[in-house]
Parts: sequence; C-alpha cells; structure tokens
Amino acid sequence: METFPITFLPDNVTIEAETGESLLDVANRGKIHINASCGGEGVCGRCVVELREGNVQASPGLYLTDEDYQSGIRLACRAKVNGPATLFIPLESRADASFFKKATKAEEILTVENPDPMVRQTCIILTPPSPGDNQSDLDRVNAALSELSLFDNDIDLSAMKRMPKILRESEFKIKVSIFYELPLQNPDREPYGRIVNFEPTTSEDDYYGLAVDVGTTSIWARLVNLATGEVLPSMGDLNAQISYGEDVISRIVYAGRKDGLKRIQSAAIDTINRLLDRYEEQLPGYRKKTFIMSVAGNTTMSHLLIGIDPKNIRLSPYVPPAATWPSIRASFLGLNVEAHTVMKVFPSVSSYVGGDIVAGVLAAGLYKSPELTLFIDVGTNGEIVIGNQDWMTCAACSAGPAFEGGGVRCGMRAAPGAIENFLYEPAEKKHYLGIIDSVSPSGICGSGLINIVAELFRGGVVNKQGRFVENSSPNVRQGPDGWEYLLSPADQSAGDHDIVITEIDIENLIRAKGAMFSGYQTLVEAVGLEMQDLERVIIAGGFGRSLNLENAITIGLLPNLPLERFTYIGNSSLTGATLAALSGTMWRKAYELKQMMTNFELSDTPGYMDRYIASQFIPHTDASLFDL
Amino acid sequence: METFPITFLPDNVTIEAETGESLLDVANRGKIHINASCGGEGVCGRCVVELREGNVQASPGLYLTDEDYQSGIRLACRAKVNGPATLFIPLESRADASFFKKATKAEEILTVENPDPMVRQTCIILTPPSPGDNQSDLDRVNAALSELSLFDNDIDLSAMKRMPKILRESEFKIKVSIFYELPLQNPDREPYGRIVNFEPTTSEDDYYGLAVDVGTTSIWARLVNLATGEVLPSMGDLNAQISYGEDVISRIVYAGRKDGLKRIQSAAIDTINRLLDRYEEQLPGYRKKTFIMSVAGNTTMSHLLIGIDPKNIRLSPYVPPAATWPSIRASFLGLNVEAHTVMKVFPSVSSYVGGDIVAGVLAAGLYKSPELTLFIDVGTNGEIVIGNQDWMTCAACSAGPAFEGGGVRCGMRAAPGAIENFLYEPAEKKHYLGIIDSVSPSGICGSGLINIVAELFRGGVVNKQGRFVENSSPNVRQGPDGWEYLLSPADQSAGDHDIVITEIDIENLIRAKGAMFSGYQTLVEAVGLEMQDLERVIIAGGFGRSLNLENAITIGLLPNLPLERFTYIGNSSLTGATLAALSGTMWRKAYELKQMMTNFELSDTPGYMDRYIASQFIPHTDASLFDL
Repeated sequence: METFPITFLPDNVTIEAETGESLLDVANRGKIHINASCGGEGVCGRCVVELREGNVQASPGLYLTDEDYQSGIRLACRAKVNGPATLFIPLESRADASFFKKATKAEEILTVENPDPMVRQTCIILTPPSPGDNQSDLDRVNAALSELSLFDNDIDLSAMKRMPKILRESEFKIKVSIFYELPLQNPDREPYGRIVNFEPTTSEDDYYGLAVDVGTTSIWARLVNLATGEVLPSMGDLNAQISYGEDVISRIVYAGRKDGLKRIQSAAIDTINRLLDRYEEQLPGYRKKTFIMSVAGNTTMSHLLIGIDPKNIRLSPYVPPAATWPSIRASFLGLNVEAHTVMKVFPSVSSYVGGDIVAGVLAAGLYKSPELTLFIDVGTNGEIVIGNQDWMTCAACSAGPAFEGGGVRCGMRAAPGAIENFLYEPAEKKHYLGIIDSVSPSGICGSGLINIVAELFRGGVVNKQGRFVENSSPNVRQGPDGWEYLLSPADQSAGDHDIVITEIDIENLIRAKGAMFSGYQTLVEAVGLEMQDLERVIIAGGFGRSLNLENAITIGLLPNLPLERFTYIGNSSLTGATLAALSGTMWRKAYELKQMMTNFELSDTPGYMDRYIASQFIPHTDASLFDL
Repeated sequence: METFPITFLPDNVTIEAETGESLLDVANRGKIHINASCGGEGVCGRCVVELREGNVQASPGLYLTDEDYQSGIRLACRAKVNGPATLFIPLESRADASFFKKATKAEEILTVENPDPMVRQTCIILTPPSPGDNQSDLDRVNAALSELSLFDNDIDLSAMKRMPKILRESEFKIKVSIFYELPLQNPDREPYGRIVNFEPTTSEDDYYGLAVDVGTTSIWARLVNLATGEVLPSMGDLNAQISYGEDVISRIVYAGRKDGLKRIQSAAIDTINRLLDRYEEQLPGYRKKTFIMSVAGNTTMSHLLIGIDPKNIRLSPYVPPAATWPSIRASFLGLNVEAHTVMKVFPSVSSYVGGDIVAGVLAAGLYKSPELTLFIDVGTNGEIVIGNQDWMTCAACSAGPAFEGGGVRCGMRAAPGAIENFLYEPAEKKHYLGIIDSVSPSGICGSGLINIVAELFRGGVVNKQGRFVENSSPNVRQGPDGWEYLLSPADQSAGDHDIVITEIDIENLIRAKGAMFSGYQTLVEAVGLEMQDLERVIIAGGFGRSLNLENAITIGLLPNLPLERFTYIGNSSLTGATLAALSGTMWRKAYELKQMMTNFELSDTPGYMDRYIASQFIPHTDASLFDL
C-alpha cells in the first residue's frame, strides 16, 4: 500500500502513513496525543487540526461548518490520509502533558517503619559442592532456605537459568529474592514462596517497589525502597489512552474495535514505561532492583492494563470479567522491567468501584477506625464509600464530566490558565479571578466552576434553580446558548475569546453535584442513619486539592457538616498502592476490604431517583439539610 | 552474505546456505539428520557425506584419507559451504528414523482404574448475573467452585481472557479445568489450584494427558485419556538432537556453543511437535483437550528441554542446576499445544540418575514392594537402583557406548540389519546369525555383541581374558586392529564389507559389563548385603527387550541369580510418565522417590575401582560369584 509523509506541527514530527489511515491514528503512532474525548467516534469535535500543506480526505459535517472546512480545519479522527500533508495541532486539541512534566515535586513523605514487602531478600552462604556432596544447585539453595524456615519455594525459570553461574561467581554466597504469592481468593491462607531472583552478593542493599495509580486521565507512579521503607517523590504523566477517549466508556468502546484492546493496553504500558525511564534519571540502575509493582486503577483501567476486554462493564447489569487478579510478570505486559518484577493489581469491588477506591480506603485507614466515615472521590465517575472498621457500603455515581471541566462551554482541566478561584463582591457587582500559575485565563476547571457558582449564588446572581437573576450583574448577558455570565473578555484571555459561564454549564454542575449528594443520602439511609451522623468526610482525588469546602457545601455537593470533619487526602489510590508495595499485610487488607465493601448499584436502589430529582437545586429542595 | 543452494540426496532437499556454514548445520536446518556422534567436533568421523556436484571447502585430515577425499568423501561437520553443491548422505551416516516410523503399534495396554490427574474438570451451572447480582464473572465462578469445596483457585490470564465470552455463549453453564499445583519442595503440602481453561459445555467429555519419555537417542510419547484412564498406543521418533552428538556429554558440549542451547532445545521440541502431529491423525482435535504433559528424561535431557545450561553436569563434582522443576506452560517452550497445557517434568536424583530412572522406579513399583530389588537400565550411562519400599540407593555408571553398538568396529543400533542373535556350534565350529528383520546383516547391535561373546566364550573361541583362542575356529583371523572373528563376509553383507568382531570390541564390552556389575556390587555391599540377597532384578530400557539373560549372566553383565527373579519392563520411563500423567498421587510418589533415593557417586565410593578391575574377566575374577 502507498504511504505518504504526514507532518505534525508544532512538534514537527513526520510519520509515514498509509492511504486511508485516520490522522488520529497516525498521530498516535508518533506518540503525539490529540485530545479525542469520544475515542475517535467523530462526535465530540475536540480533535480539531489545521491543514497547512498537502491534502487529506475529509468533509464538513456535524462538527465542522463549511467555513471551517474552507479555512483548513479538519477533525483528526475523521480525516484520512490520501497524500503527503502537514497539519498544525492547536493548543486546545492537544492532550496536554505539560502539567505533569513539572509535577515531580517533593511531597509529604510517607514512611513505613517496618516494611514487610511481598518480596523478601535473604542472604545465604552455602557450602560449595564437593565430591561427597553434589546435590543440585536448587536443592542446595532450598535446603539452606529451609534452615531459615523458608520452605516450599517454587522458582521462576528465568531465575533458574541464571542460578548456576551466580552461585559459582559468588563462591556460593548469594542473595535470594522470594516473592510470597498471596492466595487469590483466600487471603487468610498461608502465602507460598516463589524464588524470582539470585544475586552474587551477601550484602544487604536497597531494593525497590513501584506503586502505580492508573487513572483514566493520568498515571502516577511512586518508587519506594523496600529495605528502608523510604518513599520517593511521585511522578505523573498523562495516560496516553486519552487519545482513545476521555472517559472509561469511550475507552471500552475503543477496546472493542479491531486491535483496539491491544492498542489501548499498549498506550497505558507506554505511559508507565515513560515514568520508569524518568526514575532512571534520578536513580540510575534502580530497575534491576525493582521487584514489585503495586498497581491501583479503576475497574476498566485494570482490565485494559492487563489486556482483558472490559465490554460487559458498560452493559447492564455491569458485570466486570474480574475483580481480583493473579500476580503477573510485569515484563510479559511489555513493561521495561526485569523478569523478576512481579505486578500485583488491586482488587475491585464492582464495575464502577475499582481498585483505586479499594486502595484509597486502605490509605484512608477506614478499616481501623470506629468513626462513621464518608469517603468520596469526586470525578466523572464519583465513588462513595460509607462505613467504619465493622462494615462498609459503596457506590459509584455517574456525575458526568462537569467536575473535570467537561460538558462546560469554557471548561478545561485543572492546568495552567484555568480559573480556579473566584470572588464576587455583591456591593460593587465585581469579581476577582484566581488562575492556576497566574497566567492569562484559558477556561474554567471543575473546582473553579464550583467556586464561581457558589459565589454567584451567594451574591444573588444565580438563583436556587441555577438560573441567572435578571439585571443582577452587568456581566449577565444573552449568549449563543442562552444566558451567560462574562468571566473574562477575549482581550484579557489566552484563547482570544470571551470566557463565560452559561446556564447550561450551571445545569450540568447541578446534575453532577446532585448525583453525588443523592448517592451519599442513599447509602447513609440504607443503613438507617442520617447525614449528620457522619463523623468524618474524607475527600480523595486530584479534584479535592483545590476544593473550597464552604463553596462545595453551598452548592450542595458536600453535606452540611462542621468543616473540621472534612479531610483531604490527595491521590489516595497512589498512597494505597504505595502502602501495598511496602507491605504484604496491606495487600491482605486490600483483599479483606474488597470482600467487606457492599456495593450498591444506585440506579437499581429504591429511592435514589427521587433523591436525585430533589437534589436538582442550589443547595437542595430540602433546605433543612443545609440549614447552617 | 552470499547464499548457495545445497542439495542433499537421496532426500533431494535443497537448502539455501550461507558461505562458511557447515554442511551439518545446513542439513539440520533442513531437518535432515546426519549422525554426528561427537556433536560436530570433527572427532568421530561418522558424518561422512559424498560430494556429487559443485564444491565445498574442506580438507583431508584425521578421519579422511587423501584417497577418500579425492573420491568426494567429506565430513559434514567440517566441510563448509563455498558454492552450490549436491551431496549424498550414505546410509551409515543417516541418523535413521525408519525404525520409529513403524513403531506405532498396539502395546500391552495399561489401564488405570481411577485416574486422579493433576488437572480436573468440573461442570458448573451458574446463576446468570442480574441487576441485583452483578459480581464479577470470576467471583461468580469461584463462588460456585467454593460450594464444591474447590477453594483458592488462582487463574491463568489466558483463561481469564476467554472467560466472559464463554460464560455468555454457554448461558453460564460451563466446564472449568483446574490444575492442582504440587508444591515443588514439599509434596505433603496441600496443592493449590489454578484455573487453566473454560469451555462452554456441561457435558463430561474425554480429555487427555501426554506422557513423554525424552531419551538421548529417541523420544517416545503416549496419549492417555484422563477421563477414562485409557492409554493409547505410544509413538516414537529419533530425538533430533542426535545431530548435535550421540551421547549426553557431546550434547552438553554443544549446548555451550553460541546459540547451542537454543538449537538443541528446539531440536527436542521439534521432535515432540512431530509426535503431537502424528497423534492428530489418529485423534483429530485432541490437542485442544490436552491439559497435561508429563515428561521424564535423564537429567541432561530435562535441562536441555527446559533450556537450562547443563554445563556443570559434566564437570566434577557433577552438580546439576536443578533436580526438580516448576510447572511450565508447555506452549512457552514452543510446543504446539494450547495455553492450557501444563508441563510437569520428573524430578532427578543426581546428574546421572535422572527423571527417567525415577519414572522407571515408579513404574516398577519398587516403592510398594518389600522385596529387595535391583533395577537396572543398561546403556551408555547405565543406571542402577537397589532397594525396596523402605530404602533405595542408586548410582550411574559410565559403561561406554558398547551396549548401543558404539566403540565397536561393526557396531550399530538395534535397527533392521543388526545381528542380534548368534548361535555357535563348537562341534562343527559353525555359527548362525539372527538378524533384525531378517535382511542382510549390516552390523552388530549391543545385545548381539553380548550373545556373540557369550557363545564364543562357551564355545572355547574366546577365553576368560576376552582373547581369541588360537586355532579355535577357522573364522578367527588377523585383521587391521589385531585378532578378529569373521561373522559375515562382505559378499553376504549389506555394506559390502566383512562384518567382524575384534578383540578390541570384546575389551570394550568387558569394560562396559564390568562397570555395571561392579556398580551392583558396590551398592549391595554398601548396605551390608550380598548379591544373592537380591530377590528381584528388573531390567528397563530398550536394550532389555532383546537381552538373552543366560548370555548376559555368562559374560558377567547380570548377577548369577535364578532366571525367574528377572523381569523385563520395557520403556519404564514412559510407563512412569504415563502413570503420572494420569495421577497426581503418582506425581507425589515421584517426589518422594527423589527424596528417598540415596545417590552414590561410584568413582568416589571406596572399593568401586577394585571391584571394577576384578570384573575385567569373563565372567569375573571371582568365579565363585558365577558358580552355577
């Protein structure tokens, strides 16, 4: 088949592409990530590119006016190669990874005093073989391990292959690494050992585990020292799967295409490999000493990473293929680690309460607290856990993308240029913007949206129904989508267009917060309690970082409780994965949690819809819930 | 690099070869097996080929006279490609597989009444998921298995990948195959399960295991029905590794070359794949239903099959890398079976008492008999086991190749044309030959050699020292290697040369039988017993089939015991592998045997050398041992 050079600007990367390939696929092959929220279905209109030279096969349509088309605008997912071409990817189409590149920062350091990782290293000094004592190398090793009460070790072939040489070059003084396999179903059963590596040394040394949080949007990793319990700063990057859809549903759809599962799996693996490479700069040679990868992700992400078709997750009654995973040799999946690195993936509870939430609940310590706790992770898929050391219930609610800046006219992720803070002065009818990194504003992120709506509601500009109050502010005006509020005029904005919040945006936010709130209500009432009984609220996830609690209560996203009951714990999925990398005991806890958490499918739960409808006000129909 | 067509006759197979490749390597690539006893070291002179057209780069030398060279004779291991060429492979250079092609014959049928294979199949009917019951597919399967008290099952990713589809296409009525992993070190520990396959059916059906005996010369396989215990006829083929050397030592040397280990491993895998293909003709589709491969081989063969460098096996103090093996996914090694086929390899006792002997002892039932038993496998490496249900000792002795027709001027394997039987009439000084398949004689096989020497000894032609008695027979004459006895003149023989037995041949036989006999003595005396205490003698291996017991006693190869104490059990390695394919209990026994068998290194055992020297007579220096 004929191929043509396709060049992408501003990166100036040229890729040979076949006739008929979509520009989105070509860009993906070149690791250039174009935002395609819908997974390349041609329905989101986000993957706009500009044709600068040459030609591609495309036509105007739903998302492209004739005028756009004439000016060279194309949708990367619909346009097909039919000759050489040069395309420019505008800022708004880029799946922007710049945020992550800067995000390697020292964090609050977790330290685990007595790590008990699933891989243990034992130094043994063997009596070298002699004419009267010539048992096999492996029998000799196992006999020495048995003396240390380390019985019953199976062995990896890759370790076995290297064993004879290592024994002899070290004069039979070696370090053995044994992975203790946790029985999949019954964590109470005694684990069994498997020798995964030999080293020609008897000096105790650092060795590592890698915690990984595979998020739908981003993947974070954190290296831990299994010998000392020390935790290194985390690193993040955009999950390269973003080019196959922004949310789990579009990813699942993409995975159903020909070769889709393989591609989408590789995208996550590539992202983790990039993070592995970045640690190399900080700690050269650490990879050889990395024995455990402890991975937490939502149920869909876990399936895609491991390469299991998650199709049924999105089909009623939402049955995931698996909620627990066998131990996997990480290198089998294409991860650039040694054969001795074992990957453990967190168990899920259900299709939409995944391993990331189990890890989060583990990190939050719910299992050891008598206090009635609400644990929430706010996002497109909001997850809710209520319980304490004795019982737990959980649910997922489909909040929609508003909290992540989606479905909002000027929405964007919490990246530089996003309006995050907002102050409204009713007296002067003026507002002040707080922008991430203090640059010119480009749009509104999720927490910004909450702050704007709360301030405008308190200031009388937005009413209980989420409508603009006529003549309440000079910034309220009619726009193409109906009434809107001007936040930043084009000449003060980065994108050369007005930044506004519309009544439709507010409606979307109310739907989202209502979905979450009616979720808490349903779980609390299912166990015969009331909202006021909640002794602690733990907010997890990237979203919580910049959340203004009072504003979140004002709009009815969070329950009206004394502020001191709220805690924000950051990326609890990564923290849980970190604890589990360091500790086999924590892995057992994770399996216990999976068993302990009773899942509610909200859409099937009586009363949920009524509560949801009642929540479609600011803050709520039942004002008594929010009496201060 | 330039390539040339190299054609091999009589097969008329043409292979493209690079300049400088050895003809032996080229032939191997084309699956044409040339006998190269020394593994291509250029020292055995067996790989003679005739140049018919074109040219190769070679020179006369140790094994080629100038005259041979002028007439076109080349050594395939030394001659290198330097242009197109056509070569003829004479019969004596072929690693002859014709014997095996005919050997698919009904055998005495083993039947195991109640098979308890390591893979069990369980049919389960699941309640399909519904809105109120949407646990993961795997949790649903495991819950149903738990009800049947089948807990704690790990799962293969390959099975997991297919699970959701199979559950739905069968409407949640499935058959699950679970492999029960035997702990490697401690067979008493409870095995743990691993789901290896799902099928969309609940009908009980046949499923299979394949027993494999990986011998140095030949590989035999036997399919067993795990559902019924039925045993199918075995099939054999020449181990394609023969082209890399005839004995284990030359294989080990070859494995140490660049890519040698990989090639030699592939050769065995290819051979097993050919056997798998041949079963396909008998039982189309059986492969999908094959779950276990139960493999027995000597220690070197086991290492080469699995791909572990066996180097230290041939270096004092003869320490094998491993004597037990983890379970291996057979398809990982390149075997043409499904991902669900698990390979189990028999444990070895030592470098030279391998899994084939453990399997043989298992098949012979020594572990359940109170009778003091001598178990022997006669061959280049002769193995000896003495013991009963309470204790066992074992040893290997390096008998040399005489029993397999090696190191004997007119020696050959037990193939058509081999002189196998021999009768000498002292009165008439005449002899009669018994030839395999009653064709013209080509040479002498191992059992033929024993029969010839025993008859000539009894007839007064050969004396106690193994020398020809002057004027005892008109057939005794001076030959190029000293005195010899003419068995068949050239004009009555297949190879157009006289077939003789020389004094050197007899010396080699005496060395070989002496090595075995002093081995039994050493083991018997080590436990304070005498030869006469042996209540049974079990002879295993292909060699035993045509062994004349009286003659073997006459020359001092077997102890002088009443003939009714002797039993021949054929390929006991394959039989043991068959039992273990059918039964997890037998696998446990195999591990117990490995632990129970005390290994003696004869060369390090006091008294062995004295006994060996004393054995260098017919039948023995100590005639009282052979008083009839």
